[in-house]
Formats: sequence, C-alpha cells, structure tokens
Amino acid sequence: MAVYTEVPDDEMAAFVARYGIGELLSAKGIAEGVENSNYLIRTTQGAYILTLYEKRVNPDDLPFFLGLMQHLAARGLICPQPVEDSRGEMLGRLAGRPAAIVTFLDGLSVRRPTAAHCHELGRGLAQLHAAGSDFAMERVNALSVPGWRPLAEQAGTEADKVSPGLARRVAAEIAVHEASWPQGLPRGVIHADLFPNNVFFLSDRLSGLIDFYFACTDAFAYDLAICLNSWCFEADSSFNLTKGQALLAGYESVRPLEQAEVEALPQLCRGSALRFLLTRLVDWLNVPPDALVKPLDPLEYDRKLVFHQRVLDAREYGLKR
Amino acid sequence: MAVYTEVPDDEMAAFVARYGIGELLSAKGIAEGVENSNYLIRTTQGAYILTLYEKRVNPDDLPFFLGLMQHLAARGLICPQPVEDSRGEMLGRLAGRPAAIVTFLDGLSVRRPTAAHCHELGRGLAQLHAAGSDFAMERVNALSVPGWRPLAEQAGTEADKVSPGLARRVAAEIAVHEASWPQGLPRGVIHADLFPNNVFFLSDRLSGLIDFYFACTDAFAYDLAICLNSWCFEADSSFNLTKGQALLAGYESVRPLEQAEVEALPQLCRGSALRFLLTRLVDWLNVPPDALVKPLDPLEYDRKLVFHQRVLDAREYGLKR
Repeated sequence: MAVYTEVPDDEMAAFVARYGIGELLSAKGIAEGVENSNYLIRTTQGAYILTLYEKRVNPDDLPFFLGLMQHLAARGLICPQPVEDSRGEMLGRLAGRPAAIVTFLDGLSVRRPTAAHCHELGRGLAQLHAAGSDFAMERVNALSVPGWRPLAEQAGTEADKVSPGLARRVAAEIAVHEASWPQGLPRGVIHADLFPNNVFFLSDRLSGLIDFYFACTDAFAYDLAICLNSWCFEADSSFNLTKGQALLAGYESVRPLEQAEVEALPQLCRGSALRFLLTRLVDWLNVPPDALVKPLDPLEYDRKLVFHQRVLDAREYGLKR
Repeated sequence: MAVYTEVPDDEMAAFVARYGIGELLSAKGIAEGVENSNYLIRTTQGAYILTLYEKRVNPDDLPFFLGLMQHLAARGLICPQPVEDSRGEMLGRLAGRPAAIVTFLDGLSVRRPTAAHCHELGRGLAQLHAAGSDFAMERVNALSVPGWRPLAEQAGTEADKVSPGLARRVAAEIAVHEASWPQGLPRGVIHADLFPNNVFFLSDRLSGLIDFYFACTDAFAYDLAICLNSWCFEADSSFNLTKGQALLAGYESVRPLEQAEVEALPQLCRGSALRFLLTRLVDWLNVPPDALVKPLDPLEYDRKLVFHQRVLDAREYGLKR
C-alpha cells in the first residue's frame, strides 16, 4: 500500500481543472490499493478519488474498468463513478501515467464481518451481477484456470520453502481443474476481488463496492465462491456456516442460483481458493524480506483449499435446498 | 511517507466515537509525514486528521505540540486544531500508540513558490510568532547548535562518501557556531520546519500552516532563516533575491526585525543550512539503497551553506534598510 507516483499539487490542480468538478482544495496521497497510486482530493464540489494507473495495470483494460463503473453506477449500484473531463473523456494522463477521477464513497470496511454483513454482501453481489448483465464489453479472467499453471511455475520449487509439499499439492490441484472446470454456467461481469476491504458499510448497511480492477467476464457463481472464501472463514481458517448461509441467502434474495451453479459451487470454491493461494504465493516469494509491507499469507488459502476439497455438496456452505 | 500503523476501521470508529465529532464515515491512511501515521477521516460533522505518533516522536513532547496548536488556533492562526474527547483530553491511545484528532485544513502546497507566495509566507510566519508569544510551555530546540556535533559524529567519515571533504567542512562550520552563536535575540515559539510542503495556499493566499512536530522555543529570526533557506532558493541552489525581499517584507509587515536580529541573520542562515545538511546527511547514510522513498539530498544544503558563508549583510537577502 503506497503512493508510487508523487504529483505536485500544482500539476494536480491543473489536471483537475479540466473536469467540471470545481476548484481543487486539497489532495492527499492515500495508502490504498497495491496496484495504483490514489489521491483523495477535495474540490469546491465534493470529494473524489484520483487514480494514477501504475505498470501492473494494462492500459488496454482501463476502458473496460471505467466503462463498467459508469455502467453500474448508472444502474443504481453504489460504486465509484468515473468523472468525464470537458471533452467527455474518462481517461486522462497525469505525471506520465493514465489517470482518472472517480466519485468518493463514504463507508468503512469491516475487519470481522458478521452474518448480517455477509447477508448484505450477498445481496450487493447479486445486484452487481444483475446491473452488469447488459454491459457490452468483455474482459477475459486472466486469473482463471489457464492462468494458474504459469503462476505455479513462477513459484516453482520455492513453494516448498513456504510449506513442505506445497508445489506438488498445487500441481495436483491445477490438474484437477484443468480436466474438469465447470463450463456453460450463467456468466457476465464479475468483481473477482470482493474481499471485505473492497466493501463499505455504514451502520451495518452496505454503502458501496469499490476497486473494480480485477473485474472480468466469468461465471457469476465463481464470484460467489470468491466471497465465500473471503467472508465466511474465521481467522483460524475454520468455515463459519452461519455466515455462509447468510451470504447465500442474501445472494439468492436477488438472484436465485440455477441447479448447475449449485452443483459447481464446491469446485468453484476450490478453484478460487487456489487462485488466491497462487497469487499470494508468488507475491510472498517476490517480496524482499525487509519490505515495509508484509505480503498476505498464502497458507491461509491452502487451509481453505483443504476445507473445500472435502466438501461434497453446496449445502455444506449453507445453501438451503 | 507511509502509514506505519494499520488501524482496522472498526477500532477507528470506536476511537472516534469518544470525541464529539459525529459518526465515522470513512478513514483513509494518507502518505504524509515521515514521522507518524496519519489518517484523513470524515465524520457526519466534517473532515479531520487522526494521527498516531510513532517511535521517532517523544511522547513527552506531545502536550507541547498539541497545546501549541490549540493555543495558536484560539488566536486566529489557521492551523490544525486538536479536538478534545468527552473527558477534555487532546491525547488518546489507539493501536498501542499515542493518538490525536485535529481539524482538517483545505489547501495546496506549492512546489515552486513565487515571490507572492513568499510574501504571504513571511506574513504568516510573523503571525505565528505573534500568536505564540504568550504560550506558556517551552520546548528546547534539540536540533540547534548543541545537537549538531552528535549528528556530525553519527555521519562520521561516511560524509566524505557523499561529497569529498564534507566531514571536514562540516566540523569547521560547527566550530564556528559553537564559538559565536547569537545570544539574547527575541525568542518564543518557532515552527522550525516551515518548508513549502507545510504551508497551504488557496488561490495564492495562505490558507494554513501544518506539521508543528518540530516546533520549539528559539529565536524568531532563526525561523526566518529556515524559511529563507527553504523558500528563496531555486532548484539549482541559486538565491532568488526577489523572493528574499518578499519574504522579509511580508514578515516585517507584521513584526519588524530588531537590529540585533538583522545583524544575526547571515549566521542564522548558515546555521539553519547546516542543521538541514546534517539531518539529511544522517538520513541519507541510513536509508537502505533499495528503499521506496528516496531521502532528500543533503548537498542541496551544502550549496546553500556555501552561499551564506559569503553573505556579509542581511541586505543581501533582500532586507530593505
């Protein structure tokens, strides 16, 4: 979490002046997002986030991300809304980088979600899927099955230094999914990274969804699997069935799951646990030992994966069928 | 520039609830200040800065800093104003650290101050000196003459790796000031670090002074010398006389200098250049080569020091006498 690009206030003021959002009153680099530089700016008209896209983001993906936020906000989803400049462009350039301004959302992230939060989140996720259903653009999920083997190869045998036998376990798991990944499920825009830090609450009501920079076109139920992984496990990696029930019930209150999705859910949960295990593993092995920011523990997702491997039926996640 | 202590939003909300400033709506860690962790928070009543004091700040100094900001704000100076909790305390504890909430100030820092900015700054500095004149607490300037030899010893002969002969030049300069540092000048509260990044402007009018964590009791003219060093040199370390004139005229429009201060000014400028040369030198030698944040160049202040060593009279800084 860092500000990678320092932008002097006067350059920032000149950039902001091109948008019809009043005069710049303040700009603070915020320690949010590992991929980009973000500034919380205040103008005479309100608060906004100004983002500079750093090298880990492919500039070709930016029209998808910004177009999606615009599309979702227009359909009533509470998410950051890109602001157009005087020429109607959402994407600008600042300090040599692609840059955009989006509306600021109030809200707090919960560190330990309750079942009530999980229910809210489930509803919000289904609303996101519904709101995105008529979005015209597509983006391949680069972190789905075809992306896993290259990640495992990046880690290589170093994985065993993190946990003995991990490289072999990961290879076996990848083989399972390459052979039998569920096909033909209902699909559309998914958030693909809807962890608690990307969801805002005010007085226990969901007040916004943020960080759409992993969004892509994939199975809706895979997004649900990501949320089961990131919202319904306790700190000791045990699964909380009450939270699972709440998340699934919240989701189905807006968009009931089809039978094929129900049947696929255990494997989708395994796959999504593997996806976060792999990306965290690669980050873990690539961060210098004296880094200020500690990478996230890959083994948390190894433990979740083991849980999912033993699940036989989506009812074990709390689905009421 | 970093957030050293991550505070979960729910802990933050509980902390904020103890102050009479409404409910917490959002909290963003901001990349500001090299000493402390700062969060820009929004509540139902407005915007504030929540600071967690990290280990480089001596907790015994906090009542001075917070009391000073309260005192200055009460006298109309635009600076962050500490908020008292329900028991009337300005200093709390959060995440194991001393913590305080101050009002948020709008404003932008100028990277390349103009003469007009320097005039505003001069006026603001004199207003600060006037507003602090009846502040009851005292704090020794730990970075004045007695502090310089220990800093030079910390750098040692490593200094010569930064610039050949630097260790010897620094030792000679310290000896000069130890023998003849001006005594008996008008004194009181000084900011002691009023660089452009600590001064806010809106539409070219000074809109606030921030970061009082080097404030101490010392000669007013020494504060002026620090500003001459940090505001009136160009990027190539040449002195801009127009900006010097503006800064001094702005200052004297509020508080005319006494004759002893005028006479002492060249030496105070030398001393303050040496002070920033020394602290930057120590930081430079102690930062790992792969650090994300590059330390500030100590030699900028070596060049300024050489300029001041040749000044014979305060008129060379633009003083109209």
